[in-house]
Amino acid sequence: VKPDDLRTPALLVDKAAFEHNVATMSSRLPGPALRPHVKAFKSTSLARELVSAGHETFCCATLREVEGMADAGMGTDLLLANQTVDVDRLGELSARDDLRLTVAVDSDATIAAAATGGVREVLIDVNVGLPRCGCAPGDAGRLADLARAAHIGVRGVMGYEGHLQALTDRAKQAALVERSMAKLLEAHDAVGGDVISGGGTGTHDLNTWVNEIQAGSYVLMDTQYNRLGMPFQQGLFVLATVISTTSGDDGWYVVDAGLKALAMDHGDPDMADPAHQVLFCSDEHTTVRPGEAAMPAVGDKVRMVPAHIDPTIAKHEVMHVVDDDLVHDTWPVDLRGW
Amino acid sequence: VKPDDLRTPALLVDKAAFEHNVATMSSRLPGPALRPHVKAFKSTSLARELVSAGHETFCCATLREVEGMADAGMGTDLLLANQTVDVDRLGELSARDDLRLTVAVDSDATIAAAATGGVREVLIDVNVGLPRCGCAPGDAGRLADLARAAHIGVRGVMGYEGHLQALTDRAKQAALVERSMAKLLEAHDAVGGDVISGGGTGTHDLNTWVNEIQAGSYVLMDTQYNRLGMPFQQGLFVLATVISTTSGDDGWYVVDAGLKALAMDHGDPDMADPAHQVLFCSDEHTTVRPGEAAMPAVGDKVRMVPAHIDPTIAKHEVMHVVDDDLVHDTWPVDLRGW
Repeated sequence: VKPDDLRTPALLVDKAAFEHNVATMSSRLPGPALRPHVKAFKSTSLARELVSAGHETFCCATLREVEGMADAGMGTDLLLANQTVDVDRLGELSARDDLRLTVAVDSDATIAAAATGGVREVLIDVNVGLPRCGCAPGDAGRLADLARAAHIGVRGVMGYEGHLQALTDRAKQAALVERSMAKLLEAHDAVGGDVISGGGTGTHDLNTWVNEIQAGSYVLMDTQYNRLGMPFQQGLFVLATVISTTSGDDGWYVVDAGLKALAMDHGDPDMADPAHQVLFCSDEHTTVRPGEAAMPAVGDKVRMVPAHIDPTIAKHEVMHVVDDDLVHDTWPVDLRGW
Repeated sequence: VKPDDLRTPALLVDKAAFEHNVATMSSRLPGPALRPHVKAFKSTSLARELVSAGHETFCCATLREVEGMADAGMGTDLLLANQTVDVDRLGELSARDDLRLTVAVDSDATIAAAATGGVREVLIDVNVGLPRCGCAPGDAGRLADLARAAHIGVRGVMGYEGHLQALTDRAKQAALVERSMAKLLEAHDAVGGDVISGGGTGTHDLNTWVNEIQAGSYVLMDTQYNRLGMPFQQGLFVLATVISTTSGDDGWYVVDAGLKALAMDHGDPDMADPAHQVLFCSDEHTTVRPGEAAMPAVGDKVRMVPAHIDPTIAKHEVMHVVDDDLVHDTWPVDLRGW
């Protein structure tokens, strides 16, 4: 099958860009120096490619991701980098012998849930500046003691500097990451353990304070991360079909991929051909101005570049791995939902 | 099962609000005066409730929606209110004897695709002011002739005034809808046929020029449509669990439903309790300030109101039909994807 013969809208993975991105990151952060974040791509088929590249430790954001990764035989070392009080599902996961599960905790309540759920290992999640989960750095030691008193192993700390991922001034970013990670190291002094986990695609090369980086978006990238000048290539596209054209001076065309196929939280997608300008997305349409370029014909296929990779992939059932001529593989997005 | 016992995030349908909305619309626009738009809710179980309320004609935005509605025995009169050049799938649908399919066309190319796909009936889709699909009003007669020359029945016209749905000044809205619908009636004069289709939830009560209204969002509503003062109640909620709290003067809490569970194209969701203010959504989290209200506890359940119903529902596998005490039913969102 040729890529342009796929039913649209379809999610395309550029095979060469994906392989370049995986190889580039694995040479920078080999093996356990990278804990790839499954939430970015939600596919065990893609995760298996990262195992082939030497990574056996993964981050998950949801219990469904943990369950699916373990079911697929990749439960060697899974970190639920998120809080949960779902003791039933923690109990099911703790009873499995094909899974080493570590859960992030940041409160008495989440430690109690981990204990009730039979969780054997946790990380203390520390607030390093992003107003989301994580305890105050000064409370981390107390929480570690509480977990150990409940006979739970404490592997160390995690702290995600999510508020610093998208900065384009790298010198400023480096200074702010250092300040943010000082909080994590303060917490680690009180907590102990081997693991200091944090970072993401946008800080993977300058966060030298953690000993594992939680990056995921680098595998396929998006328009937001492309602004950072990272050595990763755009590898994710939405293939769409032109279904309507309106001529005239301010003419436009319409494709059959809209905001149900493309995440909108970082704004409109781009067209892969930068001469073309997106006007707006509707549920199942995007209206585009061809600019100086020629108006395409109804039936033509075009490619779009998502603004945000994670929620775009989560809208699709499968990703097709393609080069210019061929669909090489089709990966189920099997970790969607909760 | 009680609603608060559901695994989160979970999509909730308030049973009483849903029944109120369906009854209200069906008394205003009984039977074929309403052609409910399946794209809003993507569920054959919900559609079946509309059949019980007297509606047997439906709009679809995708071929998957048409296929699923026909498979569920609701193929009495399905309008694909969208353009397609997928002749293979049109061919499969045209070969079915459990389906009356009408397809929107707006160009020589889409009429050619309909003819190749064996489509027996079309509507001429007319641009009435929204820069999206639809032919120029003056071209509608020519396209109808072209379709009839290809032995395709032309049932009439459709034109969607989507750019006028969200206006809150109703007098201005009425004037603009009249001007927009004048274009559709001009086209209808040239096309003929019984059907003049258009409108939506935001114009259902003042678009008196069409003879069927294509509304869908009214069934469950969202924060955007709630601004219009319609006689419909909020019936769609996302149930979430508080997973982290940070105290202090500017304290916040975090719930386990983020932008993968709530559409962001109309902005952030609201909390059902208006005292609480959403700060921002991440992939699997929303950070909320309790304002003057008390800080909730980790493990508490809260409800969120989506900003846009259609793409929010499309992110979920099921909807749970609930009242205060009980989960009455669980409807699969079985028309997702393409």
